[in-house]
Amino acid sequence: MKIEKISSNRSFGGWHHRFTHTSAVLNCQMTFAIFLPPQVEAGANVPVLYWLSGLTCTDENFMQKAGAQKLAAELGIAIVCPDTSPRGEGVPDDAQGGWDFGLGAGFYVNATQAPWAVNYQMYDYVVTELPELIEANFPVTSKRAVSGHSMGGHGALVVGLRNPERYASISAFSPITNPINVPWGEKALGHYLGANIDSWKAYDACELVSKATQHLPILIDQGDADSFLAEQLTPQALTVAAAKAGYPLTLRMQSGYDHSYYFIASFVDDHLRFHAEYLNR
Amino acid sequence: MKIEKISSNRSFGGWHHRFTHTSAVLNCQMTFAIFLPPQVEAGANVPVLYWLSGLTCTDENFMQKAGAQKLAAELGIAIVCPDTSPRGEGVPDDAQGGWDFGLGAGFYVNATQAPWAVNYQMYDYVVTELPELIEANFPVTSKRAVSGHSMGGHGALVVGLRNPERYASISAFSPITNPINVPWGEKALGHYLGANIDSWKAYDACELVSKATQHLPILIDQGDADSFLAEQLTPQALTVAAAKAGYPLTLRMQSGYDHSYYFIASFVDDHLRFHAEYLNR
Repeated sequence: MKIEKISSNRSFGGWHHRFTHTSAVLNCQMTFAIFLPPQVEAGANVPVLYWLSGLTCTDENFMQKAGAQKLAAELGIAIVCPDTSPRGEGVPDDAQGGWDFGLGAGFYVNATQAPWAVNYQMYDYVVTELPELIEANFPVTSKRAVSGHSMGGHGALVVGLRNPERYASISAFSPITNPINVPWGEKALGHYLGANIDSWKAYDACELVSKATQHLPILIDQGDADSFLAEQLTPQALTVAAAKAGYPLTLRMQSGYDHSYYFIASFVDDHLRFHAEYLNR
Repeated sequence: MKIEKISSNRSFGGWHHRFTHTSAVLNCQMTFAIFLPPQVEAGANVPVLYWLSGLTCTDENFMQKAGAQKLAAELGIAIVCPDTSPRGEGVPDDAQGGWDFGLGAGFYVNATQAPWAVNYQMYDYVVTELPELIEANFPVTSKRAVSGHSMGGHGALVVGLRNPERYASISAFSPITNPINVPWGEKALGHYLGANIDSWKAYDACELVSKATQHLPILIDQGDADSFLAEQLTPQALTVAAAKAGYPLTLRMQSGYDHSYYFIASFVDDHLRFHAEYLNR
């Protein structure tokens, strides 16, 4: 699995690198970013936080805007940011030009429908291919945590809930908690997975929480001034499902905060400390 | 002086706002951003750090990428980010389409040459009009500090050195220290101020340091892997001029760091603490 470096920036005594590679599961060229904390240069292997970004984002948004590197450098945690969908000229996109489906909007599922299935296998990419690549190429341990924002918060919850043996902890900012019942989810899952709603449930955090037999620690932050809150994110659906299933999770409603990276930056240190507690066990 | 709000984001218990207003000195509509720390809501008046951005930037780059709000919220410092040039359809731009002159590249000077002089009065805007606007509209004190990056580092040095009574302290990341002797400066100052190099000297930190009678504290960080270091930034010109003039300043060469916001983010807390020491006197 060959990776090729695009760029490097010294950052908080560590390094921010961007790489490209050919993805076997996505059938295209992909870009990811990795922040390696200074402990790596001192010879340590470090655990990894995977960050899944939201609609329209790439590997760059979190690295540039979240302000996570300072504490990650202190705690000795690597951060990996994949892109949010397959990319490239041959990859199909929303014919209507929407930004909530297609390029930049892979929803972290394995598509089963034509023409999407050839490339849109983001679930396998994030859960398997990318971690294998990271662990083969960088001085990291196999301790992993997962977090994300909005569509990526949905991704983090789904990926973590379905693979409790692969992750130490899960967190999310403003996640789409119940995609099978909201417009963004209905559109994307309908295209990627087809009309049978039963097939969507494997990618719905509320459904997964209800069936979970192993309970990873989960921290969620949600701004109460988020314009997508009521229609798309519906955090109360998840807290109800979790309470019903006896799955302990922490959902914090943050007063006055919106859907932006200003919100993420304000609380990202809490998420890093939360993950560090489980990554360092 | 009327200002109109474009947007607001809750950030670290404070607020990030963007406003537009009609600038009398620039003869156009301008946008600026302000971060108000949480102390403001508790009734305090707070000092202000003015941040001057580099070539091609707007009010958004520092607010989104520097990660300064966390410590500014703790220290109780407001941050104001102006745009880097006049803007709008009627404002002249580099006819050759360059990004190092014209729109996004005002160089913080008062242009004297046609067609630039009508709008390109960024020195007066930053030193006088914008602070008056800020102090008339927000709960801030008249304690000010100034910092910036690259072209904006040049701006911070010039603005501070020429107005020691208006600022408590000056800092800069990767500043253009000697614009009268480097290609970026020669191009911009030649257009804005004309062929007489004597008129450029009022905007050259090396010249100003040599003539300074009052010594504000100055902190400069410069990455030694910055690709503009030798040709455009020339920090050694400033340290030589300062040593000759007996002007104490701190220049820190940071090993491995480049010209990006990853560099700024890595050291911005040091700059905030530096300014806080003088703003709170």
